[in-house]
Formats: sequence, C-alpha cells, structure tokens
Amino acid sequence: MKIAIAGYGNLGRGVEAAVTNAQDMELVGIFTRRDPQTVTVATDTPVYAWGDLEAHADDIDVVVLCGGSATDLPQQTPELAKRFCVVDSFDTHANIPAHFANVDAAAREAGTIGVISCGWDPGLFSLARLYASAALPDGADYTFWGRGVSQGHSDAIRRIPGVADARQYTVPVPSAVEAARSGKNPQLTTRQKHTRECFVVAEEGADLAAIEKAIVTMPNYFADYDTTVTFITQEELDANHAGLPHGGTVIRSGRTGLNAEFGDTVEFTLALDSNPYFTGSVLASVARAAYRLHQDGQVGARTMFDIPPALLSPLSAEELRAHLM
Amino acid sequence: MKIAIAGYGNLGRGVEAAVTNAQDMELVGIFTRRDPQTVTVATDTPVYAWGDLEAHADDIDVVVLCGGSATDLPQQTPELAKRFCVVDSFDTHANIPAHFANVDAAAREAGTIGVISCGWDPGLFSLARLYASAALPDGADYTFWGRGVSQGHSDAIRRIPGVADARQYTVPVPSAVEAARSGKNPQLTTRQKHTRECFVVAEEGADLAAIEKAIVTMPNYFADYDTTVTFITQEELDANHAGLPHGGTVIRSGRTGLNAEFGDTVEFTLALDSNPYFTGSVLASVARAAYRLHQDGQVGARTMFDIPPALLSPLSAEELRAHLM
Repeated sequence: MKIAIAGYGNLGRGVEAAVTNAQDMELVGIFTRRDPQTVTVATDTPVYAWGDLEAHADDIDVVVLCGGSATDLPQQTPELAKRFCVVDSFDTHANIPAHFANVDAAAREAGTIGVISCGWDPGLFSLARLYASAALPDGADYTFWGRGVSQGHSDAIRRIPGVADARQYTVPVPSAVEAARSGKNPQLTTRQKHTRECFVVAEEGADLAAIEKAIVTMPNYFADYDTTVTFITQEELDANHAGLPHGGTVIRSGRTGLNAEFGDTVEFTLALDSNPYFTGSVLASVARAAYRLHQDGQVGARTMFDIPPALLSPLSAEELRAHLM
Repeated sequence: MKIAIAGYGNLGRGVEAAVTNAQDMELVGIFTRRDPQTVTVATDTPVYAWGDLEAHADDIDVVVLCGGSATDLPQQTPELAKRFCVVDSFDTHANIPAHFANVDAAAREAGTIGVISCGWDPGLFSLARLYASAALPDGADYTFWGRGVSQGHSDAIRRIPGVADARQYTVPVPSAVEAARSGKNPQLTTRQKHTRECFVVAEEGADLAAIEKAIVTMPNYFADYDTTVTFITQEELDANHAGLPHGGTVIRSGRTGLNAEFGDTVEFTLALDSNPYFTGSVLASVARAAYRLHQDGQVGARTMFDIPPALLSPLSAEELRAHLM
C-alpha cells in the first residue's frame, strides 16, 4: 500500500521511519506547507509542496496527517478526507466528537475512510480503557501520564519573558498509582496524581524568581500541580533533556460476582524512549487498517474503537490465530 | 439481548453473574447435561436439560458455552453454531486454527456468528500481544502467568495415588519479568520464567516422599520447573486456598526509529481475585458483540482479533468517543 505523509515535524519523522520499516508499505511522498527545497528528510523519499497532493492522488492509498491538533488537523483532516483515505492523531479529547462528525461527513461524501485520534492517548490508552471497562463494568478508571516530556507545557514555559528554552516532565505520583491499583477506587485530585518538573534556561540577566512564579502560578498548566523549577544552562538542557520520552499507565479496578465479591485490576503501561516515533509507528499500523477498510468498501470516519484489531497487523488472520492468540 | 448458558461449572457461574449484572442483557436459561433437578444455580434463572436448547431457540440470541476445552467445546461449539450464535473460551492454543475452521463451517452454513477463544488468555492477553506487535513490529513478546491457581496442574496432582486434594500456584519469577521489561530481549527458558508451588493434602498413611517425587518429575506439568511441594491439612487448604485467583503480564519490548534507535516497552497486566468470574465477565461482553455482529448480518467464526472493540461495550459509539477516547 502507498502511503503519503502530510506535515513533517517530529511526528512526521516517526511515521517516515515506521512506514519505511514496514515491508507491506511504500512511502511515496512527504508533503509540506514549507518550501520543499528547504525540507531535509531522513530517507530518500521525495518532498513535495502541500498543493501537489492532488496531482499525486492516483499514487496514494492513505495520507497520514502529522500536523497539530490546535489549528492544523481540525481543518486539514476533513479537507483531505474529501480526496484521500486519511489517518490523524487529533488529541484534543473534548473536541473529538465534533472532529469525528466533520471527518465523517467529508469521508462519506467522498467514499473515503478517515481514522482520527490514533496514537497512544488517544489511541492505545483509549483501547485499554474500553476493553477494561467492558470486562469490568463495575469499576473505576485512572490514567497516569509520564514520566515524560509534555511539549505543550514546555512551550508554555518558553512563552514566559526571560525564558530561552525549557523542558517540562509530567511525573505520576507513585502513591497515587498504588492507590489506583489497590482496588479501593480512591478519589484522586489533580495535585495528588501528577507532579510537574520544569528545567528552564533563562536569558542572561533575567529575573529567575519572576520566571519561577510565572510558571508555578500559571492557570491550567501548573497552578493545580506541585511544580518544581530548576534553572540549567542551554548545554545541560541539550545534553540531558534532548529526547522526547513519554509513557504512562491506564488502571481500571473493578468488581465481579453477583454481589461484587471479587476484586480485579487491569493495567496497561507504556514506557517510550521517543513519543513521536512510537506514535508514528501506531499511525502506520492504522494506515494499514484504513487501507483494508477502504478495500472492503467501507466509508466514513472511524476511531481505533471501530477497527477490528487484526487489520492493524501485517500478519494474516490465519497467522495471528496460529501465533498470537 | 437474550443469553443462555450451556454448562454450569465455575465459568458458568461467572457468566451467570456478569449477564445478570448487565442492564442490556437477560439470562433466559441455564442448560446442563446433568439432571436439571440436581443443579442449584445462584440466581432465579430456570435450569433446563441440554436437550431442551432447541425448544428454546426462539428465546435465545446468544449461547455462551462454559464447558472444557479438552473434550466439551471441540464438539459442542460447532454443534450449537448450527442453530445459535455462540461464544466460547476454547483455550487449547495449538488447536485454535482447527477449532476455528470447524465453527466457521457450521456458522456459515447456518447463518450464525461463533466467537471462539474468548477470555483473558486467549482473549485480552492475545489482544495485548496483537496491539503491541502492530505498534512495535521490531520486538519480542513475553507472557507471564500468575501468581494464580492452575486448575489443570491442580487436577494433575490430585490424580497421583495417595493425594486427597491439591492446589497448584503458577508464579512468575520476578527477575525474569524485569529482564523482559528491560528491552534487552533476553532468551528465557521455561524454568527461568515461572516456578510452581503445590499445596497437597495427603491421604492418611500415604508416602509423602513418593508423592513429592511423582509431582516434581511429572513430564510437561512440573519436570521443567522449579517446583515446591508443601503438605497441608484439608482444613488449611479449605481455609487458605479455596479461591481461584489468577492473572499475569504480557510484555512486549521493541524498537522504533529508522535505525532502531529508540526502545519502548508495552505491558498489560491482570490481577484477578477470581479467574472464572473475570473470564465470565469477558464472555458476557463478547456475547454482546456477537449479538451485534449478527444483527449487522455477519456470519461465520470470529475471535476477539476480528471484533471492533466498541461492540463489546454497553455504551454507544458516541458515548465511547465522548468519554473513553
């Protein structure tokens, strides 16, 4: 199957690697809104201008969109679904129903498949929540993120006057994870579940106390958390905080039995060296499923909730039953 | 949807509880090969003779089979699939392809749906292996079982002359779990992965040394493991080992990036107070999916690999997208 990438940042690089490594896929082009001459990619894949997507339509089975959820994907995914089968990683949870409706309308009219909100959260974590709640309807869910870099929180720190660079780690509180696992269905506040660790490079002469105060009191991002701020040099940041590790844990504890006499815990954990490369790998597997759904004559929007798991794998149904069941 | 249970042992009790607790399901009957008069069930569900299934066919949407994999299900599931949509927990991994083919032929001819090998292994653990391998094609899988009661191993001990009763726990070796999690893809032998703990009640005057030797040297069951045997009284067994706890962990570690430069670990863990009640709860959720697939006009055999996850949940697709995604 022939895959195109639309948008080439960290996630685009992750999809590029995953599709290149997949034996059943061919990466036919990387499409960018920048001047293609200025974009250097990691493989020998040709780079085209975004506007050239239409001209390559006959060579593309699925477009994997790698833009951001704030402004790119809400516009791009429905637009491209009018012409292509598409996969995106839209992750603004509250807006998923509206985005789904927009992509569904475009895809149904065009006869394409649009799979939205793929990756690990939303994505594999959503699936863990769904399977666990189907098996344990009487229970409670907990999602912990980290230890990992939150790019949104890092960006928020960088916008503070006097900040040259920053990296923010989201860190689950071990005692909260243990409490969730205990089966006692504790009520956990935002502050009890995660802490935030900020590594900040200040501009020369900046007021460090003012920067720290601006961070720890920032509404939505930090005010509701126990936040630590550590000032480091750009060299330290580059040497020790260049990666984008992430991960987390979904825990559901619940009860079975006629009188809820048995307690069970279901737990799904990811520990990732590179968030964008793992997310890109999931998107590549979903592109495979999108291709197969379209070959099957299906149209419209989907999430990973709607996709038979076997369609994600390069193995045949027979191989999966024989070796992974 | 109207559910029937065929076979009433521990698993049947688990399905009975789960279906009774589900608001969108009605348990219309429990069918047994024993004399129905001799079977006392936990709810006020009517108990019928196995031969009465046909007479109740118009009242049944899905039959959940709760027999054993050795001799019951290979015969019963294809037989009942000729008349009913069926769900089973067939767990002899090596024979899944043959069982699938038999159920598929019967279900296609009859226009029914037959979902085989549901539960947690095969079942949720299979799904964890599939999703993890789709996201991390370059990697290795490890499955650890326990700490939990293996009924097959307990039965094997009970068949030794001089043994009155027994309970066997399968126990993962913590250092092996850590090694699997490390991302170094270690080769682990059977002996390195699990130990086996046996609690045995001997008959009066039995030769304890002979029993212990018979256990630890038993081919397939114990010879390849480090096995400990502890003799206890029937009272101790009844007081401390009456439950059927189980669980385990599926770990896949793998690499992403064009040159496999990033290491990731995916982990799925279950800790269950009651194996049959949790398995019964999974089977009930699959019965819901079987009903929906059949309503959709589909026919033939399926495994959980083939089922869109959303179909397992009592929530609508809209609710799932809004709340679990």
